Amino acid sequence: MEVSEKTCELPDIQNSISEYKLPIETVGIGNFKAPIYIKTKSGTFQNTVAVVNAFIDLKAESKGINMSRLPITLQKHLATTLNPDKIKEIAINVRKFAKADRCQLIYKFPYFIQKLAPESKEPGLCSYDVTFDICEGYGTSRFNMTVNVIATSLCPCSKEISYKSAHNQRSNIILTVSPKEDCFVWLEDMIEVAEMSSSCEIYSVLKREDEKYVTEKAYENPKFVEDIVRSIYCNLVKREDLNWFRVEVSNEESIHQHNAVAIMDSREDWRYKV
Amino acid sequence: MEVSEKTCELPDIQNSISEYKLPIETVGIGNFKAPIYIKTKSGTFQNTVAVVNAFIDLKAESKGINMSRLPITLQKHLATTLNPDKIKEIAINVRKFAKADRCQLIYKFPYFIQKLAPESKEPGLCSYDVTFDICEGYGTSRFNMTVNVIATSLCPCSKEISYKSAHNQRSNIILTVSPKEDCFVWLEDMIEVAEMSSSCEIYSVLKREDEKYVTEKAYENPKFVEDIVRSIYCNLVKREDLNWFRVEVSNEESIHQHNAVAIMDSREDWRYKV
Amino acid sequence: MEVSEKTCELPDIQNSISEYKLPIETVGIGNFKAPIYIKTKSGTFQNTVAVVNAFIDLKAESKGINMSRLPITLQKHLATTLNPDKIKEIAINVRKFAKADRCQLIYKFPYFIQKLAPESKEPGLCSYDVTFDICEGYGTSRFNMTVNVIATSLCPCSKEISYKSAHNQRSNIILTVSPKEDCFVWLEDMIEVAEMSSSCEIYSVLKREDEKYVTEKAYENPKFVEDIVRSIYCNLVKREDLNWFRVEVSNEESIHQHNAVAIMDSREDWRYKV
Amino acid sequence: MEVSEKTCELPDIQNSISEYKLPIETVGIGNFKAPIYIKTKSGTFQNTVAVVNAFIDLKAESKGINMSRLPITLQKHLATTLNPDKIKEIAINVRKFAKADRCQLIYKFPYFIQKLAPESKEPGLCSYDVTFDICEGYGTSRFNMTVNVIATSLCPCSKEISYKSAHNQRSNIILTVSPKEDCFVWLEDMIEVAEMSSSCEIYSVLKREDEKYVTEKAYENPKFVEDIVRSIYCNLVKREDLNWFRVEVSNEESIHQHNAVAIMDSREDWRYKV
Repeated sequence: MEVSEKTCELPDIQNSISEYKLPIETVGIGNFKAPIYIKTKSGTFQNTVAVVNAFIDLKAESKGINMSRLPITLQKHLATTLNPDKIKEIAINVRKFAKADRCQLIYKFPYFIQKLAPESKEPGLCSYDVTFDICEGYGTSRFNMTVNVIATSLCPCSKEISYKSAHNQRSNIILTVSPKEDCFVWLEDMIEVAEMSSSCEIYSVLKREDEKYVTEKAYENPKFVEDIVRSIYCNLVKREDLNWFRVEVSNEESIHQHNAVAIMDSREDWRYKV
Repeated sequence: MEVSEKTCELPDIQNSISEYKLPIETVGIGNFKAPIYIKTKSGTFQNTVAVVNAFIDLKAESKGINMSRLPITLQKHLATTLNPDKIKEIAINVRKFAKADRCQLIYKFPYFIQKLAPESKEPGLCSYDVTFDICEGYGTSRFNMTVNVIATSLCPCSKEISYKSAHNQRSNIILTVSPKEDCFVWLEDMIEVAEMSSSCEIYSVLKREDEKYVTEKAYENPKFVEDIVRSIYCNLVKREDLNWFRVEVSNEESIHQHNAVAIMDSREDWRYKV
Repeated sequence: MEVSEKTCELPDIQNSISEYKLPIETVGIGNFKAPIYIKTKSGTFQNTVAVVNAFIDLKAESKGINMSRLPITLQKHLATTLNPDKIKEIAINVRKFAKADRCQLIYKFPYFIQKLAPESKEPGLCSYDVTFDICEGYGTSRFNMTVNVIATSLCPCSKEISYKSAHNQRSNIILTVSPKEDCFVWLEDMIEVAEMSSSCEIYSVLKREDEKYVTEKAYENPKFVEDIVRSIYCNLVKREDLNWFRVEVSNEESIHQHNAVAIMDSREDWRYKV
Repeated sequence: MEVSEKTCELPDIQNSISEYKLPIETVGIGNFKAPIYIKTKSGTFQNTVAVVNAFIDLKAESKGINMSRLPITLQKHLATTLNPDKIKEIAINVRKFAKADRCQLIYKFPYFIQKLAPESKEPGLCSYDVTFDICEGYGTSRFNMTVNVIATSLCPCSKEISYKSAHNQRSNIILTVSPKEDCFVWLEDMIEVAEMSSSCEIYSVLKREDEKYVTEKAYENPKFVEDIVRSIYCNLVKREDLNWFRVEVSNEESIHQHNAVAIMDSREDWRYKV
């Protein structure tokens, strides 16, 4: 067959000897887009679109990875309904096919949850940017999950000092958790933690009675960016299924062009350190 | 029923009289995200995620639109497989429910096509950013379709003056067409026009024999940004199913930080005009 | 001299005959970055950084433009303090050097205004994204200016129906004006029109007494996105120095993930049209 | 004086007691824009525009930071010509004024270098995105510097297997270095390391003889993304003035929509770790 004959003759530069004798931790592809299916907590599946990064390590003695093996393997699993276990399985497949010791796969995708408006019960779809980040190799693996939740924050200081009202705005809550091995954490539960800690959760459909409800609820729950990040921290730190977590909250201040930001990380003893 | 009683009591500010006495052409929502289904040329459907803008007009005498009616209507058609006719139908529904004279719906989404690598025939998914832009009202409608195609461009000047090789790069081809009423244009056909006019189309999976093929094909087809835009223009101008079209090509020069850009528009006689 | 001898021998592909016989309206470079100086209304100059697009037309019989002449000309005027007249002068230079009939130059840059906080009078710098868009040729020219103003909007409906408070958020006001020939419009005046039409302007430094002021002022000035766009329209339509203008307002709703948008354009009689 | 009387009366919510008893590592402002001056290696200064993030820590017992003190302090140093020492000085000022133990300041800005085209010697301005990240407190400090260099990469495999030519593209090289205390590293030197390791550096103005030069030079220097990252690593690892460094290279493949990426970090022994 002509094509394979030709292939045999083509020099294989990637597998030639590297002049550098240096291993590389992370080599691969970025910004690979694909439609995927995700399993939801309610047992259904949903369709969405992921941007995928796939990385492997490269041995000191090799000049380059066989890069086409990464999209070929990703491509084979697009019809599959993904969850952390399934993505780990894909990582193992990528690693083996590419003859690497470790493989990291990062899937970023919008995730959708249908919510009922608080009073009218009108249904509306809310979207959350989610990242599944899996790394596998040397007989072990780790999984990190990030979810980006938009919520309302209302300023306690503005409320206290003003005759009426208080400035409020979109709060962008970014929550990353690393579950312990064999522990499974639902996206829906992380989203609930973030929304409960804000002044009020948001909705995509609100009728007048709902707008009254969310306005008044936010006013009854004023929160600094510091309050939101601490409240989420308190909620997560008592869980026993997490190795670590990180919370970043950014309030898109309605009275400023800059954002108010607070970050907490369970991992390190950062005190007395710059 | 309690909720509706409450609603009845709530003042309806949007429907109060406007102090301005000015109609507004375009009022609505932007950045509404939803998973959708799209019909493909091959008769199958594909799942993807759209960012939707929905706009209506507002009468001079009204203070505001009933904005929640826009997401409510969009929401009802998410399980539907969309094509231009179906989106027009949604636009009519939005317009009627919101009591407007016109409605514009803009869906932006990544669209996927499976391609076989040119020599190895290995399958790989390519993505194209697509916009469907429909405007409906006063008994008529118009539809514009934009597709964004990434391709390879190789510089004819660099080839001619250099001993060997030529600089080449990603070319970003943005094609907008407005089909005549009752004419239907396939996305797949517009993508083919764009790819044929480039130095070489791109693929998501390329084995060594394929890489040889695309490298040599691009070298045999050197194209300035001006050549690509003119070639697409020539191809489209002879079609009888288009009201107008616009082509924008931007080469992400591998030898510069800036891009080389060319734009042609079939609509206007721009000569002798600034 | 060696370099020029070499140049003489190199084939000049751009100036060879085009096979297409089609003029191109717009050819040039995009995303060219440069530090610039801008004249302010107060007579001082300020330093900022522009992203510049520079376009010319191409004759039907030429294969390509001499693209390097565009950055060479831009480059020569970086130490100059820019205003619309100066940019027009650069456009004329680009056009002549590149032997074109028309030249369009688009400068996008952040513009800074120092404001005093409303009560404490503490100074703080606010930034506004500005675009100067000049087109020159055939003995005439046109100039469009766009300014992007961030302000606070507070919802009248939410205020009316809620026991206390009202949802409020960042409002993104995009104002484009095209002054009549020989008329000059200050950026500072356009920014003032936009800020006056919002619920409250924003500041980069606010002490407690200022925060009280802006919270209460916004509550006293509730504005729908429709109110803001109409108010700006009314303000601009009575000016005699504008050929046309366009206003786009996008409220980054604190209770939704999507934005509320309104657009008005003085140019066209859009009624009864889709 | 009225204003300060009023201030005295306003309740100070930020300084009230927190219910959480949790310190926060990072609280502050993000996306604060300001024009700045930077010192260059050649001894001149250049004007540019920075996006600044300013963070401090918050004690367990305080409810919130005095956020306005951050922009007030940044504001006071805008006329200063910045270098790492000066930014450290600003960090100390922010920390003291805000009564914090540590302060982190992150300045991101485009940096400009004038280059002469390789043959014609025509001058042209190139821009590099730079980040200065300083953290100060507990009697010590650390400084990280990131520079983003665009260069040309040409594929060795494509060159070897193809009859003529090779695919080439923009390579995005992101270099972060952390100099040892009292060591100073020039941006210009880091940029040179990155450009030397690519297939060819880029220019903003290239005449025909220059285009011949860069095309042929890139063809003589084919580099995988792996080669570029390893070459930079080798160059930096022998320096004695760095605590650590990280190199990320992303090739915007002209034959794919996805990028080819390689990352090396001097810090950790990542082998046998997932």
